[in-house]
Amino acid sequence: MKGIKVFAPATVANVSCGYDVLGFAVNTPGDEVVMHLNDSGEVSLDVIEGDEGRLPRDPAKNTVSAVVINYLNHLGIKQGVSIALYKKMPFGSGLGSSSASAVAGLVGINELMGKPLTQEQLLPFAMEGERLACGNAHADNVAPALLGGLVLIRSYNPLDVVKLPVPAGLACALVYPHVEIPTKEARQILRTHVPLQDAVTQWGNVAGLVAGFCTNNLDLISRSMQDVIIEPVRAMLIPCFSEMRQLAMEQKALGFGISGSGPSVFSLCSNLDVARNVTAALTAKLSEAGIDSTAYVSEINLQGPQVKHLQPALSKQHP
Amino acid sequence: MKGIKVFAPATVANVSCGYDVLGFAVNTPGDEVVMHLNDSGEVSLDVIEGDEGRLPRDPAKNTVSAVVINYLNHLGIKQGVSIALYKKMPFGSGLGSSSASAVAGLVGINELMGKPLTQEQLLPFAMEGERLACGNAHADNVAPALLGGLVLIRSYNPLDVVKLPVPAGLACALVYPHVEIPTKEARQILRTHVPLQDAVTQWGNVAGLVAGFCTNNLDLISRSMQDVIIEPVRAMLIPCFSEMRQLAMEQKALGFGISGSGPSVFSLCSNLDVARNVTAALTAKLSEAGIDSTAYVSEINLQGPQVKHLQPALSKQHP
Repeated sequence: MKGIKVFAPATVANVSCGYDVLGFAVNTPGDEVVMHLNDSGEVSLDVIEGDEGRLPRDPAKNTVSAVVINYLNHLGIKQGVSIALYKKMPFGSGLGSSSASAVAGLVGINELMGKPLTQEQLLPFAMEGERLACGNAHADNVAPALLGGLVLIRSYNPLDVVKLPVPAGLACALVYPHVEIPTKEARQILRTHVPLQDAVTQWGNVAGLVAGFCTNNLDLISRSMQDVIIEPVRAMLIPCFSEMRQLAMEQKALGFGISGSGPSVFSLCSNLDVARNVTAALTAKLSEAGIDSTAYVSEINLQGPQVKHLQPALSKQHP
Repeated sequence: MKGIKVFAPATVANVSCGYDVLGFAVNTPGDEVVMHLNDSGEVSLDVIEGDEGRLPRDPAKNTVSAVVINYLNHLGIKQGVSIALYKKMPFGSGLGSSSASAVAGLVGINELMGKPLTQEQLLPFAMEGERLACGNAHADNVAPALLGGLVLIRSYNPLDVVKLPVPAGLACALVYPHVEIPTKEARQILRTHVPLQDAVTQWGNVAGLVAGFCTNNLDLISRSMQDVIIEPVRAMLIPCFSEMRQLAMEQKALGFGISGSGPSVFSLCSNLDVARNVTAALTAKLSEAGIDSTAYVSEINLQGPQVKHLQPALSKQHP
């Protein structure tokens, strides 16, 4: 029966000052899901590779299968599906690992069903996957993983997701130091109240960052990448944070910050060469400190998930 | 000796969710300053009209002359100047009255001196005028009054002011209910700390508002004009606030909010006709409640102050 392979990208949520409202996708890394329809009437999770045995095997508890089950239940479809998840990125890393899996699963099943839902309509299902994975249905990873590019979550209630322009050639340097910070704990250390003055500083920077993206103004993006609220608290959990910031800026990064809730850090860069220089400097610094790390360099992912049908698709999909 | 006439526009600071970081100028109302050089070696404030005798007559204490004195001192120029201030807008109204006077004065003296400073370099002097007038050197009125258009104050330290694109034809409806709220008091009733969750909601809206302006998306501007932090506190000081909001939205305003620290309210509108309908509905409502009001309708002012030389100018200025 029909089969499909879907790649969904890693994502950088928060983007410095844009805590909980901004996120963007990168071309690499990401997760791959292979899915085949069958007659079993059940959703099964038959293969998980690349997780070192740490992800749940129960289809109701693993994000990738849980979102597929929810999707089918919601549409009232009884359909057997066999899922294989190939983790091609670290998890608990702040790179949106659970989002990539959920989005790959949802895009896959939706394609196989003949696209009854739009990409935007898949978003709430992916957000429920986030709730399962980390206790909070946030959208700043799943939305860019699903839609590609740079995404603003203007509002959660009602959900209002806006794709923003991305300057051509904008690159991202990602470095994942091999230490683990669960998202739940990273959220719990945040204060529930913040000084109004800091909030004003933050939304001035958010405004500048968004204006920089929309008007293709790299200098403005650079000046605006300052987070006075979240980063000062979370940076404590990340080894060599201030040294890495200094090195990234010396290598001419536009800005530097925590990816999601960490421990990965990211730099936006005017081009791939700068991004390579940044990751080289940061991984060397971590290595000096005795910390292994993984680095990724890519341009911003503009197209979102990539789909490959493994058997002839419905004529409806490819007229 | 040389003389000049300068009109500087009224301004709407805060712009709903953009407390302390956004402001725009309107074409009407505004203040007019007429200035002549003389041999007295002193700055004199010889005429004030339209203030009902309420503004200080002492040149060191009135904003319009105080900023001129500061400007001349800063440049080390000993120059006699006679100033006439024609208040053509209400003050204590939330429409940036002190800013309009300060900007008109500064632009006037700078022109008369042969433009030694750029418009941007005049900004700190105008901010000092704000400190004199209302105790706080904020920039969200003076920057748009000086530069025209919609202005983002991304940062105060260092000062970073960014002009944002404005959708063509965007209009503003202003209604000033004749009650007075001093800016100092309007600031004092604000909380010093705010819930992080509200701050996130606010910067999501600020991001949406800026993206809407930059990408000419009126729907997004409309959805984003929501202030969950400042307006709920300050709206209590403004008569008929919630009724006026409802009426404005019924008349198809894009959004409604407090202008500066009030009591004036503003609506952004897709065109002048909508703006006229909004002001008609709002002034009628206030009238029903026994409150006099003044209404203004104009497009966003894009060019900033208007200058008219009253005597032959320096050849340097008009080659």
